[in-house]
Amino acid sequence: MNGEVISVGTELLLGQIINTDARMVSERCQEIGINIFYHTAVGDNEERLKQVIQTAFDRSDLIVFTGGLGPTEDDLTKETVTKMLDLPLVLVKELEEKLEKMLGKEKVSFNIKQAYIIEGSTILPNDFGTAAGMAVRKDGKTVILLPGPPRECAPMFSKYAIPFLRQEQEEYILSKTMAFTGLGEPELEWLVKDIIDTQSNPTVAPLVKDNYITLRVTAKSKNRETCEKLIEAKEKELLERTEPYFIFDYYEEKSMEEYVGDLLLEKDLSVSIAESMTGGNLTAALVKVPGISSVLKEGIVTYTEESKKQNLNVKEETLREFGVVSRETAYEMARGIQAKNQTAYGLSVTGIAGPGGGSAEKPVGLVYIGISDGDKTYVREYRLKGDRSRNITRTVFLALNFLREVILGSPNIEKDVFLV
Amino acid sequence: MNGEVISVGTELLLGQIINTDARMVSERCQEIGINIFYHTAVGDNEERLKQVIQTAFDRSDLIVFTGGLGPTEDDLTKETVTKMLDLPLVLVKELEEKLEKMLGKEKVSFNIKQAYIIEGSTILPNDFGTAAGMAVRKDGKTVILLPGPPRECAPMFSKYAIPFLRQEQEEYILSKTMAFTGLGEPELEWLVKDIIDTQSNPTVAPLVKDNYITLRVTAKSKNRETCEKLIEAKEKELLERTEPYFIFDYYEEKSMEEYVGDLLLEKDLSVSIAESMTGGNLTAALVKVPGISSVLKEGIVTYTEESKKQNLNVKEETLREFGVVSRETAYEMARGIQAKNQTAYGLSVTGIAGPGGGSAEKPVGLVYIGISDGDKTYVREYRLKGDRSRNITRTVFLALNFLREVILGSPNIEKDVFLV
Repeated sequence: MNGEVISVGTELLLGQIINTDARMVSERCQEIGINIFYHTAVGDNEERLKQVIQTAFDRSDLIVFTGGLGPTEDDLTKETVTKMLDLPLVLVKELEEKLEKMLGKEKVSFNIKQAYIIEGSTILPNDFGTAAGMAVRKDGKTVILLPGPPRECAPMFSKYAIPFLRQEQEEYILSKTMAFTGLGEPELEWLVKDIIDTQSNPTVAPLVKDNYITLRVTAKSKNRETCEKLIEAKEKELLERTEPYFIFDYYEEKSMEEYVGDLLLEKDLSVSIAESMTGGNLTAALVKVPGISSVLKEGIVTYTEESKKQNLNVKEETLREFGVVSRETAYEMARGIQAKNQTAYGLSVTGIAGPGGGSAEKPVGLVYIGISDGDKTYVREYRLKGDRSRNITRTVFLALNFLREVILGSPNIEKDVFLV
Repeated sequence: MNGEVISVGTELLLGQIINTDARMVSERCQEIGINIFYHTAVGDNEERLKQVIQTAFDRSDLIVFTGGLGPTEDDLTKETVTKMLDLPLVLVKELEEKLEKMLGKEKVSFNIKQAYIIEGSTILPNDFGTAAGMAVRKDGKTVILLPGPPRECAPMFSKYAIPFLRQEQEEYILSKTMAFTGLGEPELEWLVKDIIDTQSNPTVAPLVKDNYITLRVTAKSKNRETCEKLIEAKEKELLERTEPYFIFDYYEEKSMEEYVGDLLLEKDLSVSIAESMTGGNLTAALVKVPGISSVLKEGIVTYTEESKKQNLNVKEETLREFGVVSRETAYEMARGIQAKNQTAYGLSVTGIAGPGGGSAEKPVGLVYIGISDGDKTYVREYRLKGDRSRNITRTVFLALNFLREVILGSPNIEKDVFLV
């Protein structure tokens, strides 16, 4: 099945918001074997919207609309699609009642448009807003309408639209993603080349993400259980070649901070953080994980030498002899923050984010990350090549990955033990 | 002039990356009075790309391409556009030499495609990569080609494509944006309704941003200087009605953290931060500003009561009597971090981000922000309505805005002085 995404809203064309919905729909569709060939954004203008819809009907089997389901006259998606499909809009009592509950009886009239759906369509419920979504099939085309706000659109698509689309598929299609770091895409491909070359079911496809590379393993079968079995066998085969570079895997997308945060929570391991160059971003990454406050005891951004000495007991001689950005300072920072908070782990980061602050000996991008468990302390050196913002986000990822290795007792870490 | 953006790259359709280029082009075009009516994303497929280009030629005067200018066979944008325009590609000696410098003589052959441009086009130099951009006019159409990576695309568009587009305009068009907070879009519109209704040159348009609302003032004239004069007169008129809500204004887009960071640097005012619910995000926001380390002395994420007592001298009785999320705790945190670091200002945040942790008395979204200059201490209470992530980003904005008011001695702040 070939599909496309049409995002409706003048705010997209004015550059006020960014089209995250199209990316989300693409990614979810890939996972169940639907190819998305086009994204289009168009304004709240009936003529232009009609033309875009006509083009889509001419070339795609599936059309996913995002946006334009609001209560105002500017919101045109449903009204235009219904004309193009030559199907009427019908009032749905339950949707009207839901609006009454959400808005109060007196305000429903302003939003009454949102209680109408295209005749014959399946309602895709909105758990976070007033605009219901819908899915309808006509003349071999499948049309899905979703509201624009990503917090409404994304869960509706995963929870309700994907199961609707699965009904149309003869076979169940399921994808699992394996994430790797510490090698490039060509090296990863080389390691599993014969598996990719001879793939049939499951298929294996390499994809580059911001901070890591992935292999997406996609299986087709009669149901989810058999897909999972096929995937897990293939994953085992892939892991035999790639184990040292493997970070984590997921059916539902998961970030590095979620993975490490969940690992800390699950094992009830407390952590405290002393950051310099990452300036709060490492702590902030972990704080995205709900419930993390039960294990994250303290984060401190020690930008000055004074603050490093006072809060972390970094020694004056260490700073003088080795400098703020050094293996020795990272070591003392990690030891200091761990000792101060008596956490299972103390993390430290010191480095030069740029654009200023670099020298021939200590260039922009030089980073030391330390982890102490009170007994052993590990320190790694990195030399990054990005701009300020990239160096910071990259370092956050590397620190979380380092912590993951220490928690899991990876064999990689023994060489990083730092002894003074 | 009406334009559209075509972004080329299968990685967009796989959902691997998000289309930030289209948003950027839209926003910059708006500022010089060009309407963007469509965004399209299409994969690295010649047939589909050709159809998308044909549609664009049929409906738009300006077509901006992003992506597909790389050195591999998959990169098709230039090769396809050149066929559709019926213009040949020509080798440019200087581009070849630039590639030699960047890649070394032996590697140029792999990238030689990137030394070719469409005949008759103006080169848009790439200061951050190997793919040169170009701009060409034919048969009343203007075509611009830019590489996909946002770090290359965005500066090239602002620095080289915008001046090229300005040549086509009979008049100079310039926009300035005024940002406001503390009132809604309808209230702001009501305050300046007659100015908007009777607008001619400059025009005034309200736009909603993530954390604030704006008025965009756009002037047309013979050159930049006269535009600036027109804009500044109109801005003065608007400010008479809106002064209490005004935050800052800019010709080139500026974020709240850049504005406040620059203000601190300019006035050489040091700051230290004690965060609880924002978990490092407030410090991380300021750290985005290059050079900030000279005024940002320390940031500390005090997630536990212990950490608040130990690092900030928050009193046991205060926590017991008023609770961690209270005006009194915010006060002591701000006093404590300022006293510890002897900075011009100490900032504190304590609140409940959610989803857990709320109660009837202290619901999710309750936030206290404190600022102390060692003499006076100000505390504000907020009741936010978002989810965890939104409450955190909103609080960062509110804290920076509060600090801005304190630095500038806004009359709003006197009512926030907290006395114990």
